[in-house]
Amino acid sequence: MDIDLITAAAERLEGRAVKTPLLSSPFLDEIAGRRVLVKPECLQKTGSFKYRGAFSAVSALDPALRKNGVIAFSSGNHAQGIALAARQHGCPAVIIMPSDAPQLKIANTRALGAEVVLYDRANESREELGEALSQQRKLTLIRPYDEPQVIAGQGTIGLELATQAETAGVQTADVLVCCGGGGLTSGIALALEATAPGLRARPCEPEGFDDTARSLASGQIQRNTRLAGGLCDAIVTPQPGELTFPIMKRLCGPGVVVTETEALRAMAAAFQRLKLVVEPGGAVALAAALFHPQQTKGAAVIAIISGGNVDNAVFTKALATTP
Amino acid sequence: MDIDLITAAAERLEGRAVKTPLLSSPFLDEIAGRRVLVKPECLQKTGSFKYRGAFSAVSALDPALRKNGVIAFSSGNHAQGIALAARQHGCPAVIIMPSDAPQLKIANTRALGAEVVLYDRANESREELGEALSQQRKLTLIRPYDEPQVIAGQGTIGLELATQAETAGVQTADVLVCCGGGGLTSGIALALEATAPGLRARPCEPEGFDDTARSLASGQIQRNTRLAGGLCDAIVTPQPGELTFPIMKRLCGPGVVVTETEALRAMAAAFQRLKLVVEPGGAVALAAALFHPQQTKGAAVIAIISGGNVDNAVFTKALATTP
Repeated sequence: MDIDLITAAAERLEGRAVKTPLLSSPFLDEIAGRRVLVKPECLQKTGSFKYRGAFSAVSALDPALRKNGVIAFSSGNHAQGIALAARQHGCPAVIIMPSDAPQLKIANTRALGAEVVLYDRANESREELGEALSQQRKLTLIRPYDEPQVIAGQGTIGLELATQAETAGVQTADVLVCCGGGGLTSGIALALEATAPGLRARPCEPEGFDDTARSLASGQIQRNTRLAGGLCDAIVTPQPGELTFPIMKRLCGPGVVVTETEALRAMAAAFQRLKLVVEPGGAVALAAALFHPQQTKGAAVIAIISGGNVDNAVFTKALATTP
Repeated sequence: MDIDLITAAAERLEGRAVKTPLLSSPFLDEIAGRRVLVKPECLQKTGSFKYRGAFSAVSALDPALRKNGVIAFSSGNHAQGIALAARQHGCPAVIIMPSDAPQLKIANTRALGAEVVLYDRANESREELGEALSQQRKLTLIRPYDEPQVIAGQGTIGLELATQAETAGVQTADVLVCCGGGGLTSGIALALEATAPGLRARPCEPEGFDDTARSLASGQIQRNTRLAGGLCDAIVTPQPGELTFPIMKRLCGPGVVVTETEALRAMAAAFQRLKLVVEPGGAVALAAALFHPQQTKGAAVIAIISGGNVDNAVFTKALATTP
């Protein structure tokens, strides 16, 4: 993994991915007690940053291999990113989703042209199912984060941010990143190392699912004790990736952990002050910026919003936290 | 009014206004039956396009005059735009607002540093009050739309759009614009005339407040029969402006009129598919793009979202229109 992989991904994504703006509001500055800059990847195609990594990976495949198709496991944002990227390359996409995934996510993934294969979480192994399908149909598996071309795609956010932060007059700042498996965090960290060394990526996680913060603190990969039951499901994974963790260990500052209530309050602030729709997992970095200012230093802080795929009920719950 | 005034405004706004991206979703394309491109000015500072015109006007003032301060009448988006622009120039701003304006809007305008003077709609004339204040304190009145530097500021959206549409491969399209007094529509029309003549601005209004559509149809300025009681209050004015109407008459296609229910459904679509918070008046152009496709021609349509300053209750009402 190096910067050349990221700049090459940026060239492939040119004209495809949205160059998300850098937003701000004096009202957010007041809450945090410093300047807050927000990069809203909820505005990215398919509603999350995952499209960047997905398009990067699909576009990097050997065309002969690509025409057979790609396969992914996902119940959410990675699924939609892969589905759209595959459709844009005219190649088949098979997405393996749990049969109890939200109907809307299944419907959206199908509407983007993917073939959805449902499995029973209790009685089937998705890995065995995926292995069988990919051998049978010569599909290429695209992992959600432990995959160099996926990390490179997410890293294009860091390239854009380096330029935007310079324009905004910010040379030194913590960059707070919503973190699951670490593809987004490590990609951004690599891009910033090469292009804006005064900006330091820091993973942000919801309470109870702070595997990355604990892994960085101990220097060894730690697992989450549970995976289900959280509102921030979009960014919950069992543990940091084998590829992503060493990058984060080398480049990233300590993790920041926020409560679910803080994530909901950050969603309400994004609604009111930035006019953005953010999902709970996608609001974790903004929550860290707004409600844990003592954990960051400097005159400015930058928060990456990772996604906005939230249903009406959860969004309404977030709005209810408004004073 | 000419293109030079707009390009000069764009230079003054450089690094101040957000360059809003051009967004899209295959799900919106499907509803409209053609490609839909959306320019979300709800992401502009203070939550609406009004900041551009306000900053343009305040920055164009003679510094000696500006230091005395500016004054505006507004219960909403223009007020917040003027307040922030004045603060950024270190000059006083007085905003005359009706005493029954929403508390949140009054509080926001004050929080942005403006002095809010409340008047009683039933028993006081805001014009007399404003006249007295501005003479007494040598304040410069900044009108919300019938003011060349305000129109020029709004026109910078057209300059950005011309470049973005070209990048997106769109040479010919209707550009649907939420229209009140016509500052936004006429500014964009002037910018497009000079930089993207294949793009044609068309004013969009809510049913019952279609003064501009009727004025364009008859060739003469027509008034609304009522001004209050609509959900789309942010874009309701008595009639098209004296400066803006001749520009719209010369350059714009026929107006498009949508229902309030369509505006609410467009807000829900923007929530679900674009991750944007849009106010009812700000959703009128998107509603026209999605639900009145027979009134526009061509392979693509562009909708300008004008603002996102909506309270929880109205937003929740819009979400309830989701199927």
